[in-house]
Amino acid sequence: MIQAQSQIRVRYAETDAMGIVHHGSYIPWLETARVQLLDDLGYPYRKLEQDGVVLPVIEVHLRYRTPCRFDDRLVVTARVGTMPTARLRIDYQIHRDETLICEATSHHGFVTREGKPVRPPEKLHALFRHAFVHAGAEFG
Amino acid sequence: MIQAQSQIRVRYAETDAMGIVHHGSYIPWLETARVQLLDDLGYPYRKLEQDGVVLPVIEVHLRYRTPCRFDDRLVVTARVGTMPTARLRIDYQIHRDETLICEATSHHGFVTREGKPVRPPEKLHALFRHAFVHAGAEFG
Amino acid sequence: MIQAQSQIRVRYAETDAMGIVHHGSYIPWLETARVQLLDDLGYPYRKLEQDGVVLPVIEVHLRYRTPCRFDDRLVVTARVGTMPTARLRIDYQIHRDETLICEATSHHGFVTREGKPVRPPEKLHALFRHAFVHAGAEFG
Amino acid sequence: MIQAQSQIRVRYAETDAMGIVHHGSYIPWLETARVQLLDDLGYPYRKLEQDGVVLPVIEVHLRYRTPCRFDDRLVVTARVGTMPTARLRIDYQIHRDETLICEATSHHGFVTREGKPVRPPEKLHALFRHAFVHAGAEFG
Repeated sequence: MIQAQSQIRVRYAETDAMGIVHHGSYIPWLETARVQLLDDLGYPYRKLEQDGVVLPVIEVHLRYRTPCRFDDRLVVTARVGTMPTARLRIDYQIHRDETLICEATSHHGFVTREGKPVRPPEKLHALFRHAFVHAGAEFG
Repeated sequence: MIQAQSQIRVRYAETDAMGIVHHGSYIPWLETARVQLLDDLGYPYRKLEQDGVVLPVIEVHLRYRTPCRFDDRLVVTARVGTMPTARLRIDYQIHRDETLICEATSHHGFVTREGKPVRPPEKLHALFRHAFVHAGAEFG
Repeated sequence: MIQAQSQIRVRYAETDAMGIVHHGSYIPWLETARVQLLDDLGYPYRKLEQDGVVLPVIEVHLRYRTPCRFDDRLVVTARVGTMPTARLRIDYQIHRDETLICEATSHHGFVTREGKPVRPPEKLHALFRHAFVHAGAEFG
Repeated sequence: MIQAQSQIRVRYAETDAMGIVHHGSYIPWLETARVQLLDDLGYPYRKLEQDGVVLPVIEVHLRYRTPCRFDDRLVVTARVGTMPTARLRIDYQIHRDETLICEATSHHGFVTREGKPVRPPEKLHALFRHAFVHAGAEFG
């Protein structure tokens, strides 16, 4: 398993009239950890797009465990447990200190800018393979 | 089964650099149909909150079937298939004409403003019960 | 002067922890009236983009007069008072019934997809000219 | 003059179909620097709200100088140049390295949770006064 983390400080714009964070505001937070994971892997998402491949979300599932609020400091952890094939699955946990705030899963397809499904770039595949082999040492 | 629909015209702010609608932008659309369903039922969400009960999302699951774009006209259908108990489950479909754009499910808890779980208000329960009995005629 | 209107029903996602609409949520509302104005004019924004011209916002100014809340029904009025040249200026008012909620102004540039400034398309220019001449009858 | 800075890494959700950041996405960024300024001053915004005072935006003005894109690293600088009275004015600049991306100004009112205008809390006033006196040393 390989993983990466991002830090979030909750913005006021992300709250709603219940006084807590709106459930839709979590979605961009997942992205920040996903982007970090590709950074850590050595193939930033920006580079992937420059190489003509985009990674649209084809499914997302969020389970909200504990409400969070303006100015909370959160840690988002993204984990990839299996080698990506035509699809990439990522699991997430969001914590405020020891408290589990949210669990989530996203599924992505590899497609061209025109929306045509493609295989993951060989370079990305190699980096994932390498990371899985060295997972304990480099990502644990 | 009871259901309601809302109309969406895609805003530019809801798109992203892939040229399509960002996957997070769908979440407020689901809300518009959910709000309409409670309106049609005769107990608007605003009224529910005035009565001291809020309906936070405790789980949401979206499956993106076909990308949509700026200025697309969409119809969001929300359906409730079973009487709400401590939780309320709503299923959604988003269409552009005959094309299925997205399927989704949300789960909600009934809680007080302070976050304490409560039973659904008796009035809401009665309206749901009545609607289920008359579903064919009034909602189909 | 030419003008157009759009209808807004406030979404929960647009509110914040003050219990009112977040000031950033107004910006996509302005867009809905701007898009309607181009529709009414006969040159939808989507068509403009297909013709290779985009209209990025280069300046926006909002003055919030009265807070608004979830589920409020609002009317956004967009007005163009002078023929667009290299820039297009639009003024807005947002009302809830007779109450003025917000006043705003946006300035746009005509640019190519690559960001190069261009003159407004001749067709758009002609439509604006025609609309100004007939403003009383067709838009008032 | 007193000032504070926040760091932004542009999220994909903040871009739009022009391939650049949507003009509405800048608004929550301004907030991050404003929150940091109150933190640095010693009276976090969260604390202000707990003391019963909120700071709604009553006017905001943004001038977009250079487009920015997904994954850009930005610095937001917030400056207060005059002692707050019934209103607080904050000026902002957003940079990507040496490039000026955006200039902005926000005006805020001090109000109770019920929306009644109040004077700024004496403690906040004292902190601002102290900061202005020591501005060169502590904020420069």
